[in-house]
Amino acid sequence: MTHTTAVVLASRPSGAPVPGNLRLEVRKVPAVQEGQALLRTIYLSLDPYMRGRMNAGRSYAKPVGIGEVMEGGTVCEVLESASPLVTPGDIVLAHCGWQTHAVEDARLLRRIDPGKAPISTALGVLGMPAFAAYVGLTEIGRPRPGETLVVAAAAGPVGSMVGQIARLHGARTVGIAGGPRKVTWLKELGFDVAIDHRSPGFADDLSAAVPHGIDIYFENVGGAVWDAVFDHLNDFARVPVCGLISQYNQTNPPAGPDRLPLLMNAINTKRLLVRGFTQRDFVATHYERFQSDVSGWLAGGSLKYREDFVDGIENAAEAFFGLLQGKNFGKLIVRVSDDPTSTAPASHGE
Amino acid sequence: MTHTTAVVLASRPSGAPVPGNLRLEVRKVPAVQEGQALLRTIYLSLDPYMRGRMNAGRSYAKPVGIGEVMEGGTVCEVLESASPLVTPGDIVLAHCGWQTHAVEDARLLRRIDPGKAPISTALGVLGMPAFAAYVGLTEIGRPRPGETLVVAAAAGPVGSMVGQIARLHGARTVGIAGGPRKVTWLKELGFDVAIDHRSPGFADDLSAAVPHGIDIYFENVGGAVWDAVFDHLNDFARVPVCGLISQYNQTNPPAGPDRLPLLMNAINTKRLLVRGFTQRDFVATHYERFQSDVSGWLAGGSLKYREDFVDGIENAAEAFFGLLQGKNFGKLIVRVSDDPTSTAPASHGE
Repeated sequence: MTHTTAVVLASRPSGAPVPGNLRLEVRKVPAVQEGQALLRTIYLSLDPYMRGRMNAGRSYAKPVGIGEVMEGGTVCEVLESASPLVTPGDIVLAHCGWQTHAVEDARLLRRIDPGKAPISTALGVLGMPAFAAYVGLTEIGRPRPGETLVVAAAAGPVGSMVGQIARLHGARTVGIAGGPRKVTWLKELGFDVAIDHRSPGFADDLSAAVPHGIDIYFENVGGAVWDAVFDHLNDFARVPVCGLISQYNQTNPPAGPDRLPLLMNAINTKRLLVRGFTQRDFVATHYERFQSDVSGWLAGGSLKYREDFVDGIENAAEAFFGLLQGKNFGKLIVRVSDDPTSTAPASHGE
Repeated sequence: MTHTTAVVLASRPSGAPVPGNLRLEVRKVPAVQEGQALLRTIYLSLDPYMRGRMNAGRSYAKPVGIGEVMEGGTVCEVLESASPLVTPGDIVLAHCGWQTHAVEDARLLRRIDPGKAPISTALGVLGMPAFAAYVGLTEIGRPRPGETLVVAAAAGPVGSMVGQIARLHGARTVGIAGGPRKVTWLKELGFDVAIDHRSPGFADDLSAAVPHGIDIYFENVGGAVWDAVFDHLNDFARVPVCGLISQYNQTNPPAGPDRLPLLMNAINTKRLLVRGFTQRDFVATHYERFQSDVSGWLAGGSLKYREDFVDGIENAAEAFFGLLQGKNFGKLIVRVSDDPTSTAPASHGE
């Protein structure tokens, strides 16, 4: 009988989540049935959307139930298989959640080729966050040469891809991040301008960075960044809305005045396009092209990425709380157990 | 020497415009130069967008200057021509503004065939408002059979076309208008449900009218209608933003709470598409198809329209103020001078 160590939702947060909202628990893993596989989690992805799953209210996916294992994408090794689709020893992309072991339907697993790239990249530059950047930018943002793009959380796995892909399309790119280390990294990534949103002169810095206004604002943050961006949006600007991490812990609408009419008026007179999306909605139509494009860019050296590893499932909760405060630097990944394909486990990132 | 009686902008309104903001003035019309034509205005279109032109601030077009003739679309007769493009007696679509006579560059005139439809329709069902409905609905709203569409100001020239074209695409249509006469008219237009926004039970009526939510909300009103619609928007709903007539006289943002984050959150989690547009931006690409489609629908009896005539340029201002309060019933048109093509001047509408 296999056991799994899992992080379960103990209670729903009100505002910022606290350690008591999550609980570490050892559970028995059920026996493998026909068509299933037993998996060992190697890497667990931590992402902002998980905050939404902790709420009872409806979002674009159903919430995690109280007492259920926290949801999340994982890279796993197949330990046992009762399906012809996977074989013990295979490395697969799965959605096991925050736990060390799980039994899954083999049809939901996607095999990863360890010869192609470090397997952790299936959670980052070759995975969900990069795919969100790719579809949001190319399908909604639609950058054209010479246009100005602004993205916040630009050192993160979504923002860094948005900026780099926009640059590959000939756009001028302005990246926003928190703190000097991240700002330095943005310059290495090729952003034309890198801005620190923690600087007291942030709004002025942004203004100076966009002398010709903003044609694309890739929204994954909300709040103060949106406020600074708003007045600079050009006619026909596009705003793909991927996420609003600064808002996820809000419990009540902020005090007035009510700026909803102001936003609608700008949408009307500037003919803005504001569109929410999730990468999930594009998987069937765009995933193969994404894999092909990004693999090509990686092979050609036109894309950089950075991973931020945390060791042990018992440290996932604290790492996740830090993510909501922008403490991670690069794609945040929990190394749940040894990576059998890695020769230098502590140095995947650049 | 010809004279024109013109309505000029005397001062900029603060809030709702008042009679003193406009002034009737008799001016000399300059002599016709090479390439120009002298026009007599037959019909002047009054439209909500004109309120925006009275403000100093930037909108999608530059404001009317103090002392300048108010802007507006017109149907005119050519009195004199120094261009091979038009001949005296021709009926043309022009943009002469609120005045009885004008000299215009002949290249800006579009000849109207009086044999095809009453010439006033060039300002309504075959003109700008219907074109706005057509492009906003087909290019942004994209109705699919069985989907639910909601539109307000549904008895007006834009809303009535939105509802009828959506129905032709197989959508279920809910029209909102003010007062029992307009609601009765909506039923004649074929709306599946017609709702009176002046009813105290308006929000409940809307709720009952959209048991499966709203897939397309064509926004030309804002304010209380938006508030009622908002919670019913389905995942992947589309919101073409054509206008916000209820907001045009607002001077300050309303009191809080600030609902901007609420809207952005809905856009994010419901993957809404909210996009502002003006018909002008689509003329080059869509105008011919619009003319062909709408002419066909009119000829086939699938479209109804209604015109609301006011006589005399001296009554334009009061009619316009009434328009901003929803007092018109159908496309509001000022009959500035006799229509030489009309045999029954008072009965164009249905």
